[in-house]
Amino acid sequence: MARAATAVENRTPESQRLMQELFPHTGRALTLGITGSPGAGKSTLVDGIIRHLRGEGRTVGVIAVDPSSPFSGGAILGDRIRMSAHYADPGVYIRSMATRGTMGGLAPATTDMALLFDAAGRDVILIETVGVGQDEVEIARLADVTMVVLVPGMGDDVQAMKAGIMEIADVFIVNKADQPGAEKLERELLATLGLAHRNDNWFPPVVRAVAKDGKGIAESLEAARNYMQFEGRRNNAGERWAMRLKQMLRERLLERFEESDFTQAAERVTTRTCDPYSIVDDWLKRV
Amino acid sequence: MARAATAVENRTPESQRLMQELFPHTGRALTLGITGSPGAGKSTLVDGIIRHLRGEGRTVGVIAVDPSSPFSGGAILGDRIRMSAHYADPGVYIRSMATRGTMGGLAPATTDMALLFDAAGRDVILIETVGVGQDEVEIARLADVTMVVLVPGMGDDVQAMKAGIMEIADVFIVNKADQPGAEKLERELLATLGLAHRNDNWFPPVVRAVAKDGKGIAESLEAARNYMQFEGRRNNAGERWAMRLKQMLRERLLERFEESDFTQAAERVTTRTCDPYSIVDDWLKRV
Repeated sequence: MARAATAVENRTPESQRLMQELFPHTGRALTLGITGSPGAGKSTLVDGIIRHLRGEGRTVGVIAVDPSSPFSGGAILGDRIRMSAHYADPGVYIRSMATRGTMGGLAPATTDMALLFDAAGRDVILIETVGVGQDEVEIARLADVTMVVLVPGMGDDVQAMKAGIMEIADVFIVNKADQPGAEKLERELLATLGLAHRNDNWFPPVVRAVAKDGKGIAESLEAARNYMQFEGRRNNAGERWAMRLKQMLRERLLERFEESDFTQAAERVTTRTCDPYSIVDDWLKRV
Repeated sequence: MARAATAVENRTPESQRLMQELFPHTGRALTLGITGSPGAGKSTLVDGIIRHLRGEGRTVGVIAVDPSSPFSGGAILGDRIRMSAHYADPGVYIRSMATRGTMGGLAPATTDMALLFDAAGRDVILIETVGVGQDEVEIARLADVTMVVLVPGMGDDVQAMKAGIMEIADVFIVNKADQPGAEKLERELLATLGLAHRNDNWFPPVVRAVAKDGKGIAESLEAARNYMQFEGRRNNAGERWAMRLKQMLRERLLERFEESDFTQAAERVTTRTCDPYSIVDDWLKRV
């Protein structure tokens, strides 16, 4: 498993063959994307969800794409110690992903990693990402259910929505709901949700949680499962695969080029030795 | 010019041939990207910059990618009346772009439009975009100089930076600098800039402006020109073209497919009739 995961992360040539072989054995796991700003308490929530799922007798795979996550070795010592209990449990498999510089992009590597966990028989796969940046939004979008974790008093509530997080959330979790400002945050969220329109007519529920005390964990999972039951949900496997296939096509095409192909061609373009349209035509013929 | 612009916007087959012919005549214009939230006063600033450039005897092309811009026919009546003076001036050519659903993407169409204006002999090309979303960030990045307009009291200062705007700004303009909070915004900006690191070591200047009174216009242009003079600036034509060629390659590849190719393939993938890796392999062979 660990060797396969490393091959997938490094996108070695054999990882493609491996994924082809594994693919027919996928499609059973539930993948939950959990995203939010650093400090929102994502990892504590993930920790709680793992415990809850293990209590139900389910196996779990965790992919941490957040460099500050204790699952990635980041965060403070106390967190890491708490998490370490899971490392001893064979029912929990944890893998952190390098967040930058992954060959061919982070999103494709994460998707393949989730498929690998799926094929290996994990019941639920949790993907933890920090909710900033295009990569992370893309990853969150690739999960069955995308859960956005917010906390009061960070001032990034409505702003986070502007940055595209709003659109991808199937479930909102207001963590640290015992702190001042939680109600205000929830009100703002509901008001903004009232204005937003999703083409599947799903109204993302807002779950209150105090993850460090285990509060709101069961409710968060229930909300995710409700969305899975929701008929005609937007975020279905078909749509996700259509998007993913497009990405794969682009990536695989770019793999056939070196970075120097682009810089050398750019030199010819800036000196007006050649126009960019003819260069791209030639490239497409050559492929 | 108008017919060529329409062909470019619609990305007709003849627009590619046109661009190939025009390309050797490009490379002379200065392109300025002006981005910021709705309400930041971008259009008023653009209006001021046009007047200033016309005063210098320079010809101007304006591409409005912001649906709320008075240049696109949006915004309030007063704005549109003010702008209409430019429409009577043959030294100013204004074109608005449909912001969504442009075949092959908004960024490529905007780049080609800027090249068209360049070939037509415009001295300066202003590209106005609303600073939200991936498309807009990409467009801003394609300009010679990217200017980010902020206003006090909108609370989106530091947040805007988180969303990737910070990284692309070569010049910051604090508009409505006569309003309360302008100094605080400027202080916050400078503090954040002090922490940021650009690989070209350019320290983006912060220009105070009251665009509606014509204040800060000359200074904004001067800051942009200073950046153009800055040796080893990151945002140079070579780097931009390398990025652009990559985009063009992806777009041109995707043009050979129909949306239904992806949805039909996704169906085969979700039913596990076929794995996605083999499908993409077949596609690349077919291309």
